[in-house]
Formats: sequence, structure tokens, C-alpha cells
Amino acid sequence: MIKSEDTGYKTVGLEELKQFAQSVFKFMGCSTDDANLASDVLIQADLRGIDSHGVARLSGYLRLWQKGRINAQPNIKIKRQTASTATLDGDAGLGLVVAPRAMDLAIEKAKICGSGWVAVGNSNHFGIAAYHAMKALEFDMIGHALTNASPLVAPTFSKERLLGTNPICYAIPAGKFEPVVIDMATSAAANGKLEIAQRKKTQVPNGWIQMSNGLITNDPDGVKNGGALLPLGGNREGGSHKGYGLAAMVDIFSGVLSGANFGPWVPPFVSFLDVQPNLPGKGLGHFLGAMQVDGFCELSQFKSNMDIWINRFKTAQPIDSSQPVIIPGEPEAECSRARSQNGIPLIESVVQDLKNIAETNRLDHPFT
Amino acid sequence: MIKSEDTGYKTVGLEELKQFAQSVFKFMGCSTDDANLASDVLIQADLRGIDSHGVARLSGYLRLWQKGRINAQPNIKIKRQTASTATLDGDAGLGLVVAPRAMDLAIEKAKICGSGWVAVGNSNHFGIAAYHAMKALEFDMIGHALTNASPLVAPTFSKERLLGTNPICYAIPAGKFEPVVIDMATSAAANGKLEIAQRKKTQVPNGWIQMSNGLITNDPDGVKNGGALLPLGGNREGGSHKGYGLAAMVDIFSGVLSGANFGPWVPPFVSFLDVQPNLPGKGLGHFLGAMQVDGFCELSQFKSNMDIWINRFKTAQPIDSSQPVIIPGEPEAECSRARSQNGIPLIESVVQDLKNIAETNRLDHPFT
Repeated sequence: MIKSEDTGYKTVGLEELKQFAQSVFKFMGCSTDDANLASDVLIQADLRGIDSHGVARLSGYLRLWQKGRINAQPNIKIKRQTASTATLDGDAGLGLVVAPRAMDLAIEKAKICGSGWVAVGNSNHFGIAAYHAMKALEFDMIGHALTNASPLVAPTFSKERLLGTNPICYAIPAGKFEPVVIDMATSAAANGKLEIAQRKKTQVPNGWIQMSNGLITNDPDGVKNGGALLPLGGNREGGSHKGYGLAAMVDIFSGVLSGANFGPWVPPFVSFLDVQPNLPGKGLGHFLGAMQVDGFCELSQFKSNMDIWINRFKTAQPIDSSQPVIIPGEPEAECSRARSQNGIPLIESVVQDLKNIAETNRLDHPFT
Repeated sequence: MIKSEDTGYKTVGLEELKQFAQSVFKFMGCSTDDANLASDVLIQADLRGIDSHGVARLSGYLRLWQKGRINAQPNIKIKRQTASTATLDGDAGLGLVVAPRAMDLAIEKAKICGSGWVAVGNSNHFGIAAYHAMKALEFDMIGHALTNASPLVAPTFSKERLLGTNPICYAIPAGKFEPVVIDMATSAAANGKLEIAQRKKTQVPNGWIQMSNGLITNDPDGVKNGGALLPLGGNREGGSHKGYGLAAMVDIFSGVLSGANFGPWVPPFVSFLDVQPNLPGKGLGHFLGAMQVDGFCELSQFKSNMDIWINRFKTAQPIDSSQPVIIPGEPEAECSRARSQNGIPLIESVVQDLKNIAETNRLDHPFT
């Protein structure tokens, strides 16, 4: 671990961080395979710069397991299937383990009949959506991943939080360029961005948060104080009904179709909030898909046209010459290359949190 | 036709308006079946209150046909297929005809293997996305429709228009409630809303439009004057990179996957703008999908859970008690019921436009 006094970050090597995450999952009772898989999902988030979804969440998963809300040895079952569709019961397993297995099934189906679509119920938070969608890329398929999540977002015109930040991800192969990876919360701001503003005590822009009375606020603690995140679009004039519509679709595909909970009944990620009684489903849900590119067109033709697409957008005339147009997924791919070499920078509070886990549970750790 | 001096609208009966639209498509050389189908798509837009996409566009389609850019008797061909996927060549036909046929194919595939996904190239504008997605509902399937469109939208950080308003639609069956129908442009504002502001000469909100230099404007003529519509989210802080990402996905699925044009090469809807030379594809493209609900879960269970979902959102605590939370598709379904009974209100300029078509081409018409 390398400490930087300037930035307040400590940099941990990729392998030592991964080994530590594995040891935590093994401590919970996961098999070696599952511990490796779950750790890989978290580490990929850190590599891609989605720090809120990486090892920073390790203690959250551990606490949910301690509360008995995560089953470390799930018996994942196919509940129903057709040639191109299926529903899995995740048996209350880690979403970090259940979702990649579901994606494997979607890919197997796509190999046989062109596409595969798997709804997953009775699961837990699955980390970054991009991890799962991107599994399709190595098979020259387009990947798709959705998940619902704890209610933090108010639909347009509502005081109540009824939806999660419900992300949508598409991973699309290209030729000489990096794949296009669109991975986005359907709220105006992801919860991770809010956490940064809370930590830095900076105001947030209009359109991110409303207070408990439904009025807009710039206070980053607005959600904590009973308010809500706003759907993409911010307000009705800005198209928040569209962000709400997208979040609704994610909730219905992930929750209603799979037999998981949906809307306000999605179990909270934080262990200090109890699960509500009389739930309409089990756990939370995901929806994963894979489509063979060559089920639609010649693969080489697709890749060369994707390169034309990417090149045209990359070279678009920028408003400000110092800020070129970004291809979705490009910053994350760049971050991933850099952090693979240089290690993962962690903020002090995350290092302390991981050290606490290690010391409380007598696990070896790299945090000095 | 009933004229209203108060509103400036003239109300035309559903059947007489539909017959008129049919006569225009027959005049172009469409078969009776195709003329009926194309008219049905336009009339459904008017019924649902999407006035910009209904008979108001009839003269636009006619002018494209006169320019030789629409083939009234297309030979629609399957270019490639697997059990659950296909690509169609629309043979430069009306999107209003090609897209419903593609959706029929998606539904047939879904009946056999759980889902069906059809990319369509060499097509033209397909009207409202909801028409196509909603075809799945009568088979208790979830419908999905995307299309790319003439470039009017600038990606985040770009001065240039590289994307259409590229809509996304999902149609999801329910039980006792109306289906949930999410039909949205991926721009902050649909082009139709801009046209209304232009007609009324009202300012538009921040976040809808930028000028040719990339700065925000409230002038509704900003796009006409070389500016661009903005992606959903409005600006980077508001999440416009997400609207851009969604529009990119629609463009890639509809254009790149199908062999149609994409990005700035999508042919303009207006006939006075010429098609560019050296295009990477043919016409514009769509992407249509259908998934059997019972490929994932018991249909009756799904429908009763959808009713729980809808009821919970409808009865959410509103910010303003006079404005309850809206279920996506609810206003359009209400509008459709009312207009089915009372007829379609058309603004004077649309009536005049339709009357001109009729008189120029010696067609019977109901416009007095």
C-alpha cells in the first residue's frame, strides 16, 4: 500500500486487494469459486473508477450476511425457461455471484437461438451492471444488464421514494476501438456521486434531489433527511417522466418478471434498515440479456461499421476544444488500464473500514 | 368536421380521417392492406395525442414518395435470421408498413422460442414507436420498439447534430389496469414539443436546445438556426451523457445492426434536404422485440403483480394533491378513449395542408 499525503488516497495493489476481498467472501462461507467471482466483480468496479461499487461495499455485504439476509452457499435454480428466456431463483445469494451465472445462461441460450434473456429473482445487489453485460463481449455478443435496487428515487410528482437508481447497461462490441459500454443509473445522479458531495460537503446541482416536501434542494444530505433522488431529466420540464419511465421498466423487468420485490418493497442494501413485512416477492431482481451480433449481420461488417460510428463521434466538432466528445465506456476503459498498472486508490475511510473488517474477523490484510 | 372558434382546432371524425389517409397512401401506389396499415399507424398517433406523428405528417410522407425516396410497393425480405433474431431489408418502404411486419415476425419468433428480435434496415420513419411495441400486448407479450431518425441532437460536448430524437418504447401488459406504455424520445424534448413552442412563439426551458456555438438558448428556433436538441438530462451535470448513451444505443441497434444508416448519415425526413452521398447504409433503421411473459413467469401472477405495481404508484403521496403520479401510457390511453368518441382535433394549418393534398391530387376529403 502506498500512502499519498497530497490526495488523501492510499493506493493498494490489484492482486493484494483482490486476495483480501476473496478472504472476506470465504469468511462468509462462499466456495473458492464464488469468492473469486464476487471479488472479481468488486475489483472490476474499482478498476473502472466506479469506486462506490467496489471494495467500498465489502463491509455492506458482510453486514447483510451477518443479518442472515445473504446466503453464502446458494442453490441457484432455473424456475422456468424457453429456448431464449429463463427465470432464476438466486436463493438469496450474493448478486455478485448470481448475476454472472445468470449471464452465463443468457449467453448459452444466445449461442443456440440467437439471443438469451434471464430474469433473476431472490437475489441481492449485483455490483456494477457493466461487469455482467460485458461478459457477452468475449462471445461477440451484445450484453444487457438491469437491476432494481433499494428505493431512493421519487417518480415525477411524488413525494415518496418508490424506485431505486435502477441502472441500465448495454455492452456493444467494436473492431479496433474499445467496446461501447453504456452503464447508467436512471436517476439524474448516481448515489455514488451524492456520497462524494456529502463527504466533501459541497452543494449539488438543481435537479438531483428533492426534500421530503417535494421541493428541490441543493443540500447533499437532502436524501438522508427524508427527501429523494430525482429521475434522469430532473423535473417535468426537463423530461423527468422519461427517467421515471426507464426506472419503471428496469423495476418491472427485474422485479415483477422475476418474482423478486419491486418498487418500494425492494429490500434496503443497508443492514440497519429492516426488510418490510408482507413483501410481494423475494429479495431483489436483475434482468440479463445477450444477443449474437451475427444473428443479425456479418460480424466483421458490424465491427467495421462500429469503428466508423465511434470514429465519427470521437472526432465530432467539440464545443470546447479541450473537451472532446466522449464515447460511452471510454473513460472507464482508460481508468481500468491505468489502475491495472498502478493499483487502486482508496480513500482513508474505506481503508479504515476494510482494516476493521480484517481485524475484527482476524483476516490477513494489506492495509498498513 | 366540426370547427371550434375558441380553440382554433377543427374536429374530424375518426373514420373519415382514416379513409382520407388511406386514399393518400393508395394514391402513392400502396396496396389496400398497406394503405390501411399505414393509416392505422398515423391515426393511432392522433388518437393517443401524439399530434406531431399523426396525419400532420401525411404530406411529409407524400413528398418523400414524390422525391422517389419511398417505395410504395416494397418487397420486404429477411436478410438473416436465427430462431430468436432476424434482420429485414425494408426495400425503402414506408416505415409505417415495414415496422408492423417486422413486429409480426418478432411475435412469431417469440411464440416459438420465448422472444423475438428484429432489426430493420432500408426503411423510412415509422410513426409512433408505441404502435409497434403495443402489437405485442394482444399476445400477452412485452413489446419493445426503437428507431433512429434524422440527426437533430448533439451528443454531450458536441456542436454537431449526430443523433436523432431516437425513441425508446416498452409496452408491458397489466391485469385490470391499462398496460404500462413507456414511449419516449431520448432527447430532453421531443421535436413535436419544439414545434408547438415555435408555433406559439414561446421560450423553451434551459436544457432543451443549444445554439450553433454550443451555448444554451431559450429560442424555440434555435435548432432551425443551426443549433441542436439536447440529450435527455440537458447538460453534463444533469446527466446528458445518459440521454446521449441511450440515443447511441438506439442508433446502433437500429442502424448499425440492421445495415441502415446511422449517426449523421440517417436520411432527413424533410424532402427538401437531399440525402448525402457515400452513405454507410441504406435508409434508416428500427429495432423491434417481443418477449412472452410466460417465458419468465405465470401470466396471471405477472398481471396481478403489475396491478399491485400500478396501484402503488398511482396512489403514491403526491407533491401537489391536484397532480397525482402518472403511470406511463395512462394519459395517452385516456386521450385515445376520448378521441375515439369525439373525433380528432386538428389545428388549422394541418387541415389546410391535408386539404391541399386532396385538391392537388383530386382526392375526396372531409375538410370543409
